[in-house]
Amino acid sequence: MGIFKFMTPEIIFGTNSLSQIGESLLRLGAKKVFVVSDEGVLNSGWVERAVQYLKDCKLDYCLWTEPTPNPKDYEVEKGVHAYIESGCNSVVGIGGGSAIDAAKSVALLATNGGTIRQYEGVDLVTSPLPPMVMAPTTAGSGSEVSQFAIIGNSTRKVKMTIVSKSLIPDIAIIDPLTLMTKDARLTAHTGMDVLTHAIESYISLAATPMTEGYSLQAIRLIAEYLRPSVASRHNREAKEAMAMASLQAGIAFSNAILGAVHAMSHQLGGLLDLPHGEMNSILLPYVLEYNLISCPEKFKNISAAFGENVDILSLTGAAGKAIKAVKELAGDLDIPDSLRNLNLKEDQIDFMSLNAVQDACMTTNPRDMKAADVKLLFRRALGGGF
Amino acid sequence: MGIFKFMTPEIIFGTNSLSQIGESLLRLGAKKVFVVSDEGVLNSGWVERAVQYLKDCKLDYCLWTEPTPNPKDYEVEKGVHAYIESGCNSVVGIGGGSAIDAAKSVALLATNGGTIRQYEGVDLVTSPLPPMVMAPTTAGSGSEVSQFAIIGNSTRKVKMTIVSKSLIPDIAIIDPLTLMTKDARLTAHTGMDVLTHAIESYISLAATPMTEGYSLQAIRLIAEYLRPSVASRHNREAKEAMAMASLQAGIAFSNAILGAVHAMSHQLGGLLDLPHGEMNSILLPYVLEYNLISCPEKFKNISAAFGENVDILSLTGAAGKAIKAVKELAGDLDIPDSLRNLNLKEDQIDFMSLNAVQDACMTTNPRDMKAADVKLLFRRALGGGF
Repeated sequence: MGIFKFMTPEIIFGTNSLSQIGESLLRLGAKKVFVVSDEGVLNSGWVERAVQYLKDCKLDYCLWTEPTPNPKDYEVEKGVHAYIESGCNSVVGIGGGSAIDAAKSVALLATNGGTIRQYEGVDLVTSPLPPMVMAPTTAGSGSEVSQFAIIGNSTRKVKMTIVSKSLIPDIAIIDPLTLMTKDARLTAHTGMDVLTHAIESYISLAATPMTEGYSLQAIRLIAEYLRPSVASRHNREAKEAMAMASLQAGIAFSNAILGAVHAMSHQLGGLLDLPHGEMNSILLPYVLEYNLISCPEKFKNISAAFGENVDILSLTGAAGKAIKAVKELAGDLDIPDSLRNLNLKEDQIDFMSLNAVQDACMTTNPRDMKAADVKLLFRRALGGGF
Repeated sequence: MGIFKFMTPEIIFGTNSLSQIGESLLRLGAKKVFVVSDEGVLNSGWVERAVQYLKDCKLDYCLWTEPTPNPKDYEVEKGVHAYIESGCNSVVGIGGGSAIDAAKSVALLATNGGTIRQYEGVDLVTSPLPPMVMAPTTAGSGSEVSQFAIIGNSTRKVKMTIVSKSLIPDIAIIDPLTLMTKDARLTAHTGMDVLTHAIESYISLAATPMTEGYSLQAIRLIAEYLRPSVASRHNREAKEAMAMASLQAGIAFSNAILGAVHAMSHQLGGLLDLPHGEMNSILLPYVLEYNLISCPEKFKNISAAFGENVDILSLTGAAGKAIKAVKELAGDLDIPDSLRNLNLKEDQIDFMSLNAVQDACMTTNPRDMKAADVKLLFRRALGGGF
């Protein structure tokens, strides 16, 4: 093992932990808070609740809810103008990955200047960011604990991956109650996104003993609790388990990075603005079949985390059960088994395949991939049927 | 589960990671570095090495190596005078728990003022500390990642437990190479200290899903690698595994706190200045026998982490194997099975038992303890024989 680094924000987890958002900001020296969210979260009532907690702490605030799903570069640049005009000195993100990535990107530009495109890649942030507190409401993105922000490039039609330790928020507040307002479809998609984080971080070339345990524990929780969490928005035990799975998978992938599923789904999101969690979920089994030969022992451990009795199987047999378990879970959640409805054109597949091999997530995929390999996987996923 | 918090410093782990100490300090804004260590570590050559890395980064420094094992209040107060006179703006600790706890305590007084006794207890630190980078050389204390500092009160003859998030260093640099200069006895004692951290944090009332995995993984590593690590100072694989075990157990106990073993060993250290790791190791089986009824399922998981085949046993049988495994490990490492050589007097036992129930570590022990219970355990440990 070479030298590796491991970082997390301060984490506050538990039922009603959102109530600590005001004092968390005070501890960080906040005076006026730029609150980033989106329309969907606004309707759920959580932003109103959070704002009340800020008021209780005598904190001034400015609310900005313009980012759309798969937030775009121009949205972030509008956001930073609003931040500067507002005189805020701290940033809060409340919502899914879109709201939180937008919040982190606004914070980045607020102190580093320029356009968000300048920061695409690894470690290009030079100045410290304003204090950031993030409160996820989807148990999906992991952005509240990660060093990543994913922002759409509206000209090149790709998603830019921005990686910097500076993007790790100061405090992540994870309140499982916020998951009780999600509908079944979003719960399924974000839950499968968490599974993708857990599996890709576990088989990543950059996985370490500091991340592997969290990845496997997240898979165990998803195997047991994602179905009941989709079944009822009132199942508190399942919501708490999925919030924990999201947190643990988030810490794992922030430190171990991801793989080809994300490198590919970023292209579908960038070119066609498709929902991130669903795209990951559809692509996951295809990419796992391709990756299987790279680390069958790890696939066997994934099978065991899904509850398979691997001791009675050959290594190959045990490893294969992981892919079967993923397909069964996706099937039970009514997630399509292919991309066949997309009607992608040949030149779109070429474009996405070329971009996928350039994505930062591809560097840690456990099996080498050229553009031709990506293209083959896109074709398989378009053909459909496992 | 109620609301809980989880924090770690930035971690840099791996062979030769000590070489990153200079640039780590530069990132934190260090100009002149107060380097805290002790005579033992000085002789091992690691301080010289670290100082060279500081010089390579054009960092000025001041070396202070006065803390003794189980560092005392008056030593820390001498240290902070040296810090202030030196004009340093940052603190480094290189060594075992004694050097690192002394370094953290100097940093505390440097910005918070007063005497170290004022900070005994939980959350009494109000001002931010100067930048701190800690490099452990013992794979034992976990202080490099923890919110604890343990300092002897020379008047009251007790160890004071100081708990504050401010005591978590900014960066912990864990270089397994530094373990290759430890002798077999220190390797055994510090290794059993790590085991005590792992087990006490796992069965702690404050354990969470964020800490339990690290606790169990540390036990697995210790079960496999502590014996070979004691056997040879040149076994790199074993040193790396023990460094990882120490790190994971350290993160676990910093966030989940400890239990009665530490509450009792702190008294032996405070009153008689006895070596911390060895005292923990002797007390551990006695306290585990007392704690067994509180959480047999967790004891069963500890047995499994030691490699016991628990599936063929009753719950009680499986749980009991954990204590047997601890005794066997301690026996193999030539650690005494009792305190009988100490010749403790009745009034000393009374004094220590009364103080142990006041120790911050006692609040998370999984079975209630009154002073009379502590006294009984001290008596059993003095009688000896398992």
